Amino acid sequence: MNKKYIGIREIAQLAGVSIATVSRVINGSSKTSDEVRERVNSIIEKYNYVPNITAKNMFSNTSKSIALFILDLDNPFFVSLVKSINKIAFENKYTLLICNTENNTEKEIEYLKYCEGIRTKGVIFTEGHIKNISWNKLHNQTCVFHDRQMSEAFSSVKSDNIKGIRLLVDYLFNLNHRQIAFAGYDKATKSVTERKQAYVTALGEKGITVPDEYIFSGDLKAKTGANAFDYFCSLPNRPTAIICANDQIAIGFNQRANMIGMRIPDDFSLVGFDGCNTEYFYPKITTIKQDINLIAQRLFECVVSPADQPKHYIIDVSLVIGNSCKKLNE
Amino acid sequence: MNKKYIGIREIAQLAGVSIATVSRVINGSSKTSDEVRERVNSIIEKYNYVPNITAKNMFSNTSKSIALFILDLDNPFFVSLVKSINKIAFENKYTLLICNTENNTEKEIEYLKYCEGIRTKGVIFTEGHIKNISWNKLHNQTCVFHDRQMSEAFSSVKSDNIKGIRLLVDYLFNLNHRQIAFAGYDKATKSVTERKQAYVTALGEKGITVPDEYIFSGDLKAKTGANAFDYFCSLPNRPTAIICANDQIAIGFNQRANMIGMRIPDDFSLVGFDGCNTEYFYPKITTIKQDINLIAQRLFECVVSPADQPKHYIIDVSLVIGNSCKKLNE
Repeated sequence: MNKKYIGIREIAQLAGVSIATVSRVINGSSKTSDEVRERVNSIIEKYNYVPNITAKNMFSNTSKSIALFILDLDNPFFVSLVKSINKIAFENKYTLLICNTENNTEKEIEYLKYCEGIRTKGVIFTEGHIKNISWNKLHNQTCVFHDRQMSEAFSSVKSDNIKGIRLLVDYLFNLNHRQIAFAGYDKATKSVTERKQAYVTALGEKGITVPDEYIFSGDLKAKTGANAFDYFCSLPNRPTAIICANDQIAIGFNQRANMIGMRIPDDFSLVGFDGCNTEYFYPKITTIKQDINLIAQRLFECVVSPADQPKHYIIDVSLVIGNSCKKLNE
Repeated sequence: MNKKYIGIREIAQLAGVSIATVSRVINGSSKTSDEVRERVNSIIEKYNYVPNITAKNMFSNTSKSIALFILDLDNPFFVSLVKSINKIAFENKYTLLICNTENNTEKEIEYLKYCEGIRTKGVIFTEGHIKNISWNKLHNQTCVFHDRQMSEAFSSVKSDNIKGIRLLVDYLFNLNHRQIAFAGYDKATKSVTERKQAYVTALGEKGITVPDEYIFSGDLKAKTGANAFDYFCSLPNRPTAIICANDQIAIGFNQRANMIGMRIPDDFSLVGFDGCNTEYFYPKITTIKQDINLIAQRLFECVVSPADQPKHYIIDVSLVIGNSCKKLNE
C-alpha cells in the first residue's frame, strides 16, 4: 500500500527518452514521433503517472488555493455558502481552505499566518471580528469581504439588505401590521446593523416610529429567537409581527412559542432572512431569499481574478412567502 | 497591493550574508554572531518574511493536506464532523480539503483524481457510493472509512450503533412501548442498515417480532420523517413509538405532526440518533449521542499516522433523554 508516485524523470528513464520528450508528450506537442508517444504513454498508463499540481503551482509562488473565513458553521446560511464556494473552487481546480474561526480573534490571526505559509491566492472574509490586522502585510494575497467592507482597498459582496427588509416591512404593512418588532440586532455585525437600520427607516417612511423596546439584541442563533419570544411576550404593548435578523432566530422563536402552546401565525406573525434550508419547518417561514450561488460566484471571482479597482457588489434578493404571517383586521 | 513574498535569497543579499547563514538564523542555530543574527532578523521583520510551507512539503512528494469525502453537508452530523476534523487538522498544520460529493459517483472520481494531483496524504471517506474504485491505484495515500468498511486493507471508525439502538429499545420498552417502528431504513447506507438490524434483534430478544410494515424506508433527511409520519398514521395497527435512523428524520416527523395538530409525545413517542444541534427543537428529542470529537480524532490519526495493520475503531455512544417519549399504562 505504500507505492510511491512516479515522476517525469522515472518515466523518461523507463521509456529511454529525455525528460524534455516526456514533457512534450504530456503537453500534447506534435514534435514527437508516434512510436515515442505511444511508448511514453504506455509507461504513463502502466505506472499511473499523476502530475504533481502542487509542484507546478509552486514556481509561481502562489498555490491554487483560496481560504474562506467563517465564524459559524452551525448556521445553514454559511453551510450553503461553503458548499457553493467549494463547488466553484473545485470546478476551477482550486483548493478551498475553510478557516472556521468561531469568532475567535487569535484563531483568525493563526489561520491568516497559515494562509501566508501555504501561499493562498486569496482570502474571503465573512463576518468576523478581525479588525486590527495589518492588511498591507497580506502580501500578494487578494482579500474580499462578504457582508462588510473593511477598507476601500478591497472588494466586497453583499446582499441587498435594504431592499430585503423593505419587502418584509411592506408585506407586513399590507397585512395591516403596525406593531412590528425586530429580533437579533447585534451592532458588531454589519449586515444585521444594516437590516435593523433599514427596518427603522422603512417604518419611519410609513409614519411609524419604532419604540426602543421593539428592538431585541442578540446573535444570529436560534436561542436568540427563544429569548426574543419571552421578551416580547413580557411587553405591555406586545408587537403583532416580528422581523427576525435571520431564519435561525425565527426558528427559535417558533419553537419557543410551540413549547408554551402558542401558535405562529395565530399569536405572532413571523418573518426571517436568508431563505435556506427551512423547508421542513412548520409553519413555513416567510423570508428573504439571498442568492447564495451568485454571492459565491462573485466572491470567488474577486479573489481569483482581481480587477484593477476594487468592486462592490450588491446582490439582489427576493421575498419568499410562507405561512407564518396572518392578516389583521383593519 | 501586489507586493511579492520575499525569499531567503533576497534576505541574504540584503543582509550581505550567505544563504546558509540566513538559514542558520531562521532555524535558531547558535553558530552565528549576535551582530549577524540581529541584522538578518531585522530584515526578516522589515520585509515580513514567511516561509513557504508548500515548498517545504513538496520535496517529500506529499503535501500536508488530507481530504474528507462528504455526501451531505446539510446534515448537522456531517457539519459537526467537518468542524471537528478541520480543527484537528489545523492544530496539526494540515490543510483539509472538503470533497462535497453530493452522492454523485462522477464527482467522487473527479475529486479523487484531484487529491492525487495535489498529493494529499490521505483520504477520509464517509458514507458514499464509491464502490468500484481501484483502491490500489491510490498510490501512497492512506484511506480511512467512517461508518463503513470497504476492505480489510483499510482502517475504519464508527459509532457503536448496536449499543445505541439497544439503549433506545430498552428505554422505550421500560416506558411500556411494545409497538415500536423504525423510520429511515436505507439499505445502501451501512450505518443505517446496522441500526435497523440492531432494532430488529433487540426487539426479537424481548420476544417481539417486528412486522415488515413497521420499517419505513428513506434517506436521512427531514422529509423522510414527514413521509414516515403520514405512513405510520395510515396503518391500522399504528405504532406507539418511532425510532428514527437519525435526528433529522425525528425533526421532520415532529414538524409534520405539529402541522396537522398532533403532538409529540402525546400521540407518538419519538427517538433519534446523532445528538448534535437539536437543542432548540421542541420537544427535546431523546437520542443517542455520537462522540464526534473522538470519531474525528481517530479518523485523523488513521490517515496521518497509519499503523502497520489497519485498525477498526468502534466508538462508544450514550443515551440523552429529552422529553419526546411518554410512559404508557401497562
